[in-house]
Amino acid sequence: MKALVFDGALRLEERELVRSTPDEACIRLIKAGICNTDLEITRGYFGFKGVLGHEFVGVVEDALDPALRGRRVVGEINAGCGRCEYCLRNLRRHCPHRSVLGILGRDGAFQEYFSLPVGNLHLVPDGLSDDQAVFVEPLAAACEILDQLQLQPHQQVAVLGDGKLGLLVAMVLSQIGCDLSLIGRHPAKMRLVEDYRVRTIPSQETGHLGRCFDVVVEATGSSDGWHQALSLLKPRGYLVLKSTYHGPFAFNPAPLVVDETTVIGSRCGRFEPALRLLQTKTIDPSRLIAYKLPLVQGVRAFELASQPGVLKVILDADDRE
Amino acid sequence: MKALVFDGALRLEERELVRSTPDEACIRLIKAGICNTDLEITRGYFGFKGVLGHEFVGVVEDALDPALRGRRVVGEINAGCGRCEYCLRNLRRHCPHRSVLGILGRDGAFQEYFSLPVGNLHLVPDGLSDDQAVFVEPLAAACEILDQLQLQPHQQVAVLGDGKLGLLVAMVLSQIGCDLSLIGRHPAKMRLVEDYRVRTIPSQETGHLGRCFDVVVEATGSSDGWHQALSLLKPRGYLVLKSTYHGPFAFNPAPLVVDETTVIGSRCGRFEPALRLLQTKTIDPSRLIAYKLPLVQGVRAFELASQPGVLKVILDADDRE
Repeated sequence: MKALVFDGALRLEERELVRSTPDEACIRLIKAGICNTDLEITRGYFGFKGVLGHEFVGVVEDALDPALRGRRVVGEINAGCGRCEYCLRNLRRHCPHRSVLGILGRDGAFQEYFSLPVGNLHLVPDGLSDDQAVFVEPLAAACEILDQLQLQPHQQVAVLGDGKLGLLVAMVLSQIGCDLSLIGRHPAKMRLVEDYRVRTIPSQETGHLGRCFDVVVEATGSSDGWHQALSLLKPRGYLVLKSTYHGPFAFNPAPLVVDETTVIGSRCGRFEPALRLLQTKTIDPSRLIAYKLPLVQGVRAFELASQPGVLKVILDADDRE
Repeated sequence: MKALVFDGALRLEERELVRSTPDEACIRLIKAGICNTDLEITRGYFGFKGVLGHEFVGVVEDALDPALRGRRVVGEINAGCGRCEYCLRNLRRHCPHRSVLGILGRDGAFQEYFSLPVGNLHLVPDGLSDDQAVFVEPLAAACEILDQLQLQPHQQVAVLGDGKLGLLVAMVLSQIGCDLSLIGRHPAKMRLVEDYRVRTIPSQETGHLGRCFDVVVEATGSSDGWHQALSLLKPRGYLVLKSTYHGPFAFNPAPLVVDETTVIGSRCGRFEPALRLLQTKTIDPSRLIAYKLPLVQGVRAFELASQPGVLKVILDADDRE
């Protein structure tokens, strides 16, 4: 079978077929999405080597439970030990012994077949297209903010960054009814959320705003974004870090103390809320798809996904597409 | 009257008497405490020039309300505009137009007489000594943590730093019944909390602990403290910043995202909880007093307070002491 492998360089390889085990199902890939984390792994961050990919929709090819076989699934990407404090609190995404699909100690979804623990899988409702289901993982990460912070309709909220995750976060937070602004550099991208009750503000026009937001979600992953977010935040505000950062930058914690700011790191989320938002047609993330390429053109797909301003690139297991 | 003034250098000056106004009471100083913030102002941080001092107990010399005259008081240090969003939410300590006693736009308490808005004053119960009442302000800052974070008895909590504020924080948090550790460099200081159900751990012996705390209160104000705190914190942990930091240091936010850490800046607190803890004899902070000097020896008192390892230095308005 074909697999998109990174071991210092990215290339398509022929690999032996993955098989199911009593605990893990074998999944046949339908579609997978390229995430910024994948791009950063290929730039040397995280130190991961192996098959990339963690956003997918697939079909259970084989599993101990016959009821699962042939079913369309998405899967949570953190595989926990099942015995630690975090796993027992249903927080296996923080298990210190975890592997993470295509990110840490476990081959990912950019291959024709791969495996995940049965407990990580969620059935995809019939009404959802593959193009929607492939967004469940990043949409769950956007929903995670609402699990961490009780966002209130009276609050002034900004999402900083109009990349893939920033747009999904804006779509999710708009459901709360708060006064929501998306701050970004790309008018064309920001137009994708214009029917979601989101005010869009060009990055260069935030200078006059002052400290007007109760909550800022930083989704740029840059030190500029961090500092801009703090400059826009009211005293006692909440800064949500919803991005991958690479490496240190200079930072003075004194203003966090003076203003009693709360900074909340935010990563993966539960899949159930994301599936509900998709199933009820509340959110349609498939409009974020920029390109679809077959898995065998994975290297080319990464080149496209790396270009500035390109939104979601989808890999399709079916060569014919 | 005598006043301890900083205008690039610290010196005792003779100043004209402060008078009350319809909104502000004139307070005669009894005792005042030297805080690390005072020391840092004399090192050039904050840019404040004027009379220093914000921890005090005094007597109302004059006020429009005759019921206040002659009463012993302590006072919240932030004077708000009374009209903004923060003042109306009883959060004048975050009023963007505030002045702060001896820190920002308002002469402080290291003088024989000074003024504060009547609404900032709290009567001191008869059972409290002056040596206890002078700690209400920093004790309120320690209590602020409990207003910001719902600390739970099942949690593993560490206070990092055995300075004045770290010790007060340990005393306050011990009341919750959580599993509490104080991590510091000075065994003699850490012994001051030994009857408060606090485990004491020498800083150099934390290497083997691993990530074992749900909450770490960083009270060292150093970048070493920040990094050590994060190394001790469990995933999904809370880092409370309870200190003054000066200047930037290199910092990588990526681990905050991966571990979904929450960082909470914490500054001044409400006086009521601190007064209750003192009145019920739950906490006796007067054991933190290292030296008492008369106000006229203020420059010498600052020299003592600046020496490594010295705890609270008290200025006494009465020359004879």
